[in-house]
Amino acid sequence: MSKTLITNGTVVNSTGTALADVLVDGETIVAVLAPGSTLLGFDVAANVDAVIDAAGKYVIPGGIDAHTHMELPFGGTNASDTFETGTRAAAWGGTTSIVDFAVQRYGERVEDGLAAWHEKAAGNCAIDYGFHQIVGGVDADSLQAMRGLVDEGVSSYKLFMAYPGVFYSDDAQILRAMQVAREEGLLTMMHAENGPAIDVLAEQLVAQKKTSPYFHGIARAWQLEEEATHRAIMLADVTDAPLYVVHVSAKQAVGQLAWARDRGMNVFGETCPQYLYLSLEEQLGAVSEEWGDFEGAKWVCSTPLRAREDGHQHAMWNALRTNDLQMVSTDHCPFCMKGQKDLGLTDFRAIPNGIGSVEHRMDLMYQGVVTGEITLERWVELTSTTPARMFGMYGKKGVIQPGADADLVIYDPNGHTSIGLGKTHHMNMDYSAWEGYEIDGHVDTVISHGKVIVDDGEYLGAKGDGRFVKRGLSQYLI
Amino acid sequence: MSKTLITNGTVVNSTGTALADVLVDGETIVAVLAPGSTLLGFDVAANVDAVIDAAGKYVIPGGIDAHTHMELPFGGTNASDTFETGTRAAAWGGTTSIVDFAVQRYGERVEDGLAAWHEKAAGNCAIDYGFHQIVGGVDADSLQAMRGLVDEGVSSYKLFMAYPGVFYSDDAQILRAMQVAREEGLLTMMHAENGPAIDVLAEQLVAQKKTSPYFHGIARAWQLEEEATHRAIMLADVTDAPLYVVHVSAKQAVGQLAWARDRGMNVFGETCPQYLYLSLEEQLGAVSEEWGDFEGAKWVCSTPLRAREDGHQHAMWNALRTNDLQMVSTDHCPFCMKGQKDLGLTDFRAIPNGIGSVEHRMDLMYQGVVTGEITLERWVELTSTTPARMFGMYGKKGVIQPGADADLVIYDPNGHTSIGLGKTHHMNMDYSAWEGYEIDGHVDTVISHGKVIVDDGEYLGAKGDGRFVKRGLSQYLI
Amino acid sequence: MSKTLITNGTVVNSTGTALADVLVDGETIVAVLAPGSTLLGFDVAANVDAVIDAAGKYVIPGGIDAHTHMELPFGGTNASDTFETGTRAAAWGGTTSIVDFAVQRYGERVEDGLAAWHEKAAGNCAIDYGFHQIVGGVDADSLQAMRGLVDEGVSSYKLFMAYPGVFYSDDAQILRAMQVAREEGLLTMMHAENGPAIDVLAEQLVAQKKTSPYFHGIARAWQLEEEATHRAIMLADVTDAPLYVVHVSAKQAVGQLAWARDRGMNVFGETCPQYLYLSLEEQLGAVSEEWGDFEGAKWVCSTPLRAREDGHQHAMWNALRTNDLQMVSTDHCPFCMKGQKDLGLTDFRAIPNGIGSVEHRMDLMYQGVVTGEITLERWVELTSTTPARMFGMYGKKGVIQPGADADLVIYDPNGHTSIGLGKTHHMNMDYSAWEGYEIDGHVDTVISHGKVIVDDGEYLGAKGDGRFVKRGLSQYLI
Amino acid sequence: MSKTLITNGTVVNSTGTALADVLVDGETIVAVLAPGSTLLGFDVAANVDAVIDAAGKYVIPGGIDAHTHMELPFGGTNASDTFETGTRAAAWGGTTSIVDFAVQRYGERVEDGLAAWHEKAAGNCAIDYGFHQIVGGVDADSLQAMRGLVDEGVSSYKLFMAYPGVFYSDDAQILRAMQVAREEGLLTMMHAENGPAIDVLAEQLVAQKKTSPYFHGIARAWQLEEEATHRAIMLADVTDAPLYVVHVSAKQAVGQLAWARDRGMNVFGETCPQYLYLSLEEQLGAVSEEWGDFEGAKWVCSTPLRAREDGHQHAMWNALRTNDLQMVSTDHCPFCMKGQKDLGLTDFRAIPNGIGSVEHRMDLMYQGVVTGEITLERWVELTSTTPARMFGMYGKKGVIQPGADADLVIYDPNGHTSIGLGKTHHMNMDYSAWEGYEIDGHVDTVISHGKVIVDDGEYLGAKGDGRFVKRGLSQYLI
Repeated sequence: MSKTLITNGTVVNSTGTALADVLVDGETIVAVLAPGSTLLGFDVAANVDAVIDAAGKYVIPGGIDAHTHMELPFGGTNASDTFETGTRAAAWGGTTSIVDFAVQRYGERVEDGLAAWHEKAAGNCAIDYGFHQIVGGVDADSLQAMRGLVDEGVSSYKLFMAYPGVFYSDDAQILRAMQVAREEGLLTMMHAENGPAIDVLAEQLVAQKKTSPYFHGIARAWQLEEEATHRAIMLADVTDAPLYVVHVSAKQAVGQLAWARDRGMNVFGETCPQYLYLSLEEQLGAVSEEWGDFEGAKWVCSTPLRAREDGHQHAMWNALRTNDLQMVSTDHCPFCMKGQKDLGLTDFRAIPNGIGSVEHRMDLMYQGVVTGEITLERWVELTSTTPARMFGMYGKKGVIQPGADADLVIYDPNGHTSIGLGKTHHMNMDYSAWEGYEIDGHVDTVISHGKVIVDDGEYLGAKGDGRFVKRGLSQYLI
Repeated sequence: MSKTLITNGTVVNSTGTALADVLVDGETIVAVLAPGSTLLGFDVAANVDAVIDAAGKYVIPGGIDAHTHMELPFGGTNASDTFETGTRAAAWGGTTSIVDFAVQRYGERVEDGLAAWHEKAAGNCAIDYGFHQIVGGVDADSLQAMRGLVDEGVSSYKLFMAYPGVFYSDDAQILRAMQVAREEGLLTMMHAENGPAIDVLAEQLVAQKKTSPYFHGIARAWQLEEEATHRAIMLADVTDAPLYVVHVSAKQAVGQLAWARDRGMNVFGETCPQYLYLSLEEQLGAVSEEWGDFEGAKWVCSTPLRAREDGHQHAMWNALRTNDLQMVSTDHCPFCMKGQKDLGLTDFRAIPNGIGSVEHRMDLMYQGVVTGEITLERWVELTSTTPARMFGMYGKKGVIQPGADADLVIYDPNGHTSIGLGKTHHMNMDYSAWEGYEIDGHVDTVISHGKVIVDDGEYLGAKGDGRFVKRGLSQYLI
Repeated sequence: MSKTLITNGTVVNSTGTALADVLVDGETIVAVLAPGSTLLGFDVAANVDAVIDAAGKYVIPGGIDAHTHMELPFGGTNASDTFETGTRAAAWGGTTSIVDFAVQRYGERVEDGLAAWHEKAAGNCAIDYGFHQIVGGVDADSLQAMRGLVDEGVSSYKLFMAYPGVFYSDDAQILRAMQVAREEGLLTMMHAENGPAIDVLAEQLVAQKKTSPYFHGIARAWQLEEEATHRAIMLADVTDAPLYVVHVSAKQAVGQLAWARDRGMNVFGETCPQYLYLSLEEQLGAVSEEWGDFEGAKWVCSTPLRAREDGHQHAMWNALRTNDLQMVSTDHCPFCMKGQKDLGLTDFRAIPNGIGSVEHRMDLMYQGVVTGEITLERWVELTSTTPARMFGMYGKKGVIQPGADADLVIYDPNGHTSIGLGKTHHMNMDYSAWEGYEIDGHVDTVISHGKVIVDDGEYLGAKGDGRFVKRGLSQYLI
Repeated sequence: MSKTLITNGTVVNSTGTALADVLVDGETIVAVLAPGSTLLGFDVAANVDAVIDAAGKYVIPGGIDAHTHMELPFGGTNASDTFETGTRAAAWGGTTSIVDFAVQRYGERVEDGLAAWHEKAAGNCAIDYGFHQIVGGVDADSLQAMRGLVDEGVSSYKLFMAYPGVFYSDDAQILRAMQVAREEGLLTMMHAENGPAIDVLAEQLVAQKKTSPYFHGIARAWQLEEEATHRAIMLADVTDAPLYVVHVSAKQAVGQLAWARDRGMNVFGETCPQYLYLSLEEQLGAVSEEWGDFEGAKWVCSTPLRAREDGHQHAMWNALRTNDLQMVSTDHCPFCMKGQKDLGLTDFRAIPNGIGSVEHRMDLMYQGVVTGEITLERWVELTSTTPARMFGMYGKKGVIQPGADADLVIYDPNGHTSIGLGKTHHMNMDYSAWEGYEIDGHVDTVISHGKVIVDDGEYLGAKGDGRFVKRGLSQYLI
């Protein structure tokens, strides 16, 4: 098996940095050494197959994107990235693991949903992948099936307080599912928006001919995210179950999380790059020759973009610093404008919800280091260490230490990355939600299981490099 | 220089554990290796001077106690531990660094205070030591002198809102000091109790013949800790200076810290073992043949012990979990009952304030792991990693990684420790504040700068082993 | 028409007291005069038909109980007080107006429900009565019907977040109803408990053989009242509609109300005597020879009694002082033990929910004045003035001023009232929820529309004295 | 004695309105009657000396301004209104009582201060006046003297957390004073700003040549008002003493009051018209030909005007609605620009602090009714009823009921008032802080003790009409 020494780099972990070499033997990290390539007189560099010089660069554990939706069926179409295209794009961006969502819908069997997703992913992925289980129809059968998930390496599942008739669970269903989760050690992930109320507002807006993409964000008012977040917290309180709220975008929802956490509850939250950088005002102002004000459809996602004048973006960055939010995922769910987003040309409700970011998360978050929003070590913590701990992969993933998978990224703080179509875009989309973003850093080298899969702007990996990650229970509970 | 391999242990850091060997070359950690003692065929174990088998045990970065008062002049006497006796006791307990407080009083020069403390400590310490600077008399001279502290490796200083006429600073003084601290990068440590108000209440209690030790805690009401904490926060807000509140004991004071932190302020707090385990009720109930109800003097410290029925102890543990408190120090300030505490036999105001815990902090906090109050990794974070980051020592201290000082503790979770005089007490006191506490773990081996100074119940170190640590700026700010 | 002078009493209103005479001409108060019975030389006393000496007594506006359920069909039976028996009992207790709830259920017409309740009440009441409208089935028809309510003098309506399949509205229904309410000026009253979640817990308790009345309170956990209260507030926020939460019993629900009110929202809450005086612990301890532990069924009501050890009762009194709760109503909904409550002998879910208090509210709240929980003027405000303002009756009701209906109570602070069967019980129940309560005051005289209906322990009124009160819009909004 | 009937008006009290006649016999209200001027056939109008037709107008209890500083010595000069000019101006504006502040300074006797103020006021006032006592030097003598205040009809006293060396009390002094207040029933009024901190900031600004009036507001940062407010609350908590915070201007200070009140504490606050209408931005922008940017000195007061962009003014109005603030006073403390304010031409610290509003408070607050900020009844509550209750005058003042002093204002909602020099200005100032304000209402008639002192734009009163009001204990405590 191949041996590699990454030498002279700055190893970053979630508490600080070390000037250290990292030695990989086969697929695994076997040592972290003082730089210099000798150990007690033994010439390490001379005994490896490859030496990578990381001088002046950061050596970080590979990114973990814990929220993606490859090939997700939604609104009559499928998310445009397959596991093949989506994970390859992720690799380009320094992400070496994703956790995607297997889907069960009302009337379907959980086991079948999970099997179907295994089939989609197996042999197709560029990087490692795990699954959360969406339970879209909570009933006696699916509750029973939930009890088998941990054995399958699926230690988390997701419920929806939105999308009545599709994925929606009512409070009785949520309560029952959380009880099972509590018993089994499953982590409950929650899409926290009051869907029934949103659907009334959306229907009324359309009746008033307010059909453009902007009104998607108006219908999904912050009050209805805050409310659902609070409700999920109280149901978690009643059942003593840990709770993880996905794609938090409203500052008031963060307020609820902070309140629960101050009380000592195991309540967690992630946000996504779109809620840190993009705003409802920009969506309103987005008009193009090609699409007119339907241009805004590029950023239709749920939860929606929020108003910058109300300070939501600032609050998200703040919460990442205060640890009221613990992680950044992408909610990667790409759709093309032509043939997909345009299903909603005359009614925003028919626009498939989602944007694609899996390729850019590590860069976009690093830019937060550059601008002083977060520290370098927090960058690693938010994008890799905490995702690994939260979702039961720590030790193998999320940290550079002996015994860990050799999933590593060499990141150049003196490099530069221009995001956009025709520039650095490898996702299967006909537009970029991040067109024009400039990053003061660059993913130089990406290593997965000890194999260099991206190097110096070249993709060296192959379909099927990635393997299913059987995850353990969350390691982040207090 | 001596080479040592610690093999087969479980290395614990603040995010999790790794089965790994630690290689020490001279005074420094040079590698963390996959267990097995060979590397790329090179037999590591065969090339070292000593191999320590840590199978079944935890290998942790040496404890850092960031709040001690060796030889502190207080109330007409001196804290009973010298730097020699106190640091040796610390070593026994798995603590390999302390940060003590050099003292400047009104009318004295800061430089002289610092020099005096250097003199007390130099050549006497069993383990490494740094200094915070107490600025007990804020004026133009001391403000100017503060500007030189960072160059001296003293990157933090302490003010008192209590003890008028001794260490007390009024709000104008605090504001001026914080402004200088903001400019120089100094971290402001605050004793947050409203001393002028407390002194009125204490005087009135004594006038009512309420002179026993218990009334020390009555005079120092939680309201007056909460108030001072809030005031310190607002002065920090006005000056944009980071703030670190020492020895937090009231749950309402934690509430203030949590509020400030949720707003994104660089506001921090430590608590001490006494506020986690001991209570005002127990102090009230403490009566002995020898001392009568003066027995309670053993636990006279400031801030005082708090009422368990009001939930303060529970709140402290909770805050350690939620990170509303970030560290545990001891505020080690020992006085003997005979000849010291008994100065206040007829008036609690004359009892020297303080208890001794420097030897037991690592054990007492480990017991919190055993009882489920905190996780194993949080234990390391609270007692070593965060103290190192907070006070500018990280990289050398607080972490097991190449380049770090070889300050290591091998802790046996299957061992046992009985605390008490005649049992495991090495502090220079005629009583133990922790008499009878039983710990389900044991400090087996303590290594400082690569030298084994405690092993298997034997002290192998020497006076003068410890060196002054020139600290950098805080590495914990957001 | 009869003229009456009430002389030498202490008139109490919501800001203080006045020594003043009250002159009634026919059904109306025509003057409030300096005591002495002459005005500019005119001998008032000589020109009236009756003079009532109120020396040493309080003269207060008649009590208004804004939450009663006479003859309510519930759980297969009907509340045991008819409008005749219930309003007569109310009169005995110093209450001169009630507002009862007309009921519409899913599939029924709102207009029919209102008409049915008019029929039940007309010609039967001892005192004045108004109606709120329960809308138990929100759909296009009932929403349209809501638009006619204000013209009917029914300016408030009630929704239920509990009782799925009976009165329950989901969030979409609540949102739509609140929108109509906002447009029409209707006040939304909310039963704020998460019914779907409660029903799961109740079902599980019964499955575990936990069937006794006590478990009613366990199933209806405070978290589920707090949650629903918050949800109602946020739906009110989205729709900009005022909100009135009925029968608040959990201190955390009060916390939500206080939070909303501090933000400036028109959010209101009532509590009931049972939540001020009675506790879950007492219900648990209630065992009788006759009923065994089913004795606790006497106090099965929803929201349930709460644990005293958690401080709920204290919090309710506090909220009455701080005006975070604005009113005290009874939620009078009596059922006999025999033939009604005992429907749930083997399953607490089948116990009709409700207790009877309409007769005792004024006394029980006066006892709060005696014990120092509330002031004398707050007593009047909570029981009469605010109910009148909240529900659009002020000017005619709730105040002693010219032009007001002559609904008056003369209350003797030197009198005494013993509550209990065979003592002062006029409600149609076979038990008293308040057996053994002693009140340091007494309702001496009750006047409705200028007619003395209760005097010196004698009932002088008649069925049909009371009239329907056509209410205007709420006069309490900010 | 003269008898007057005010007929056909709309009487407004703090819970609502009544169409009613008010009968005055001599100095006292003797009856409130149904309109029509007959009572049981007795022709009231024919038996009085005067009938005032108030048709279409509001009849309200005379305004009470509980915070004025006539002739106050401050900064080397005296407030420009004497008791004669100031109270006459008050009368013009519908205020029939003031409560002014007698002053004791360090080294002076409280009794002497009170006597001196009696001397200034006696025989000079147009309307009734009472005194609060400023205790500017808390020591054993003044604490003893405080025990005599209630007997003098002075049931409230004021401390300053600002102005070191002038009025300032430290926390020990505040604690001792509050303890005495608790025992004697005195209400503690607090100027809550952290003076020592402010003085440092002010000195630094001046050293930076930032000397213009605007920097007065910069030095007095909101953090230092919030902090002092919190501190005062906690000292009140420790001593169990009620607390009344004067001239609240920062929204965060209101937050502290709301927090204390939600906990059930007797903590109260007033704001002033300047904090509702005026802003720091306007002060910054104020430049005139005559004064240049010293124009801003017209609005130098403490607490200072606050930034509108931070929402302070909005928060003050909101707090008046939510009752987190209970009253509106003026803090009337006028200084002329020439010869007084201009003492600070080159240093804002030398500008006498204060603005004059005693004449305009009733009008300015009525405008809040017009614009929908507060209700009509809340206007009366904030300006008359609550001041009377808060400061022990209710029954005689603050309400229209038999036995009350005939202090009445007839206010015309169809009238108009233009504020400004040469328009409606009767205060002894060479400028108006309210120049150009237009009010959609008018003070038509002002009656004090049954005597018409202002009518139809004519002043009919005389120096000495007003009498000292011996106040009782606060009637507003919960």
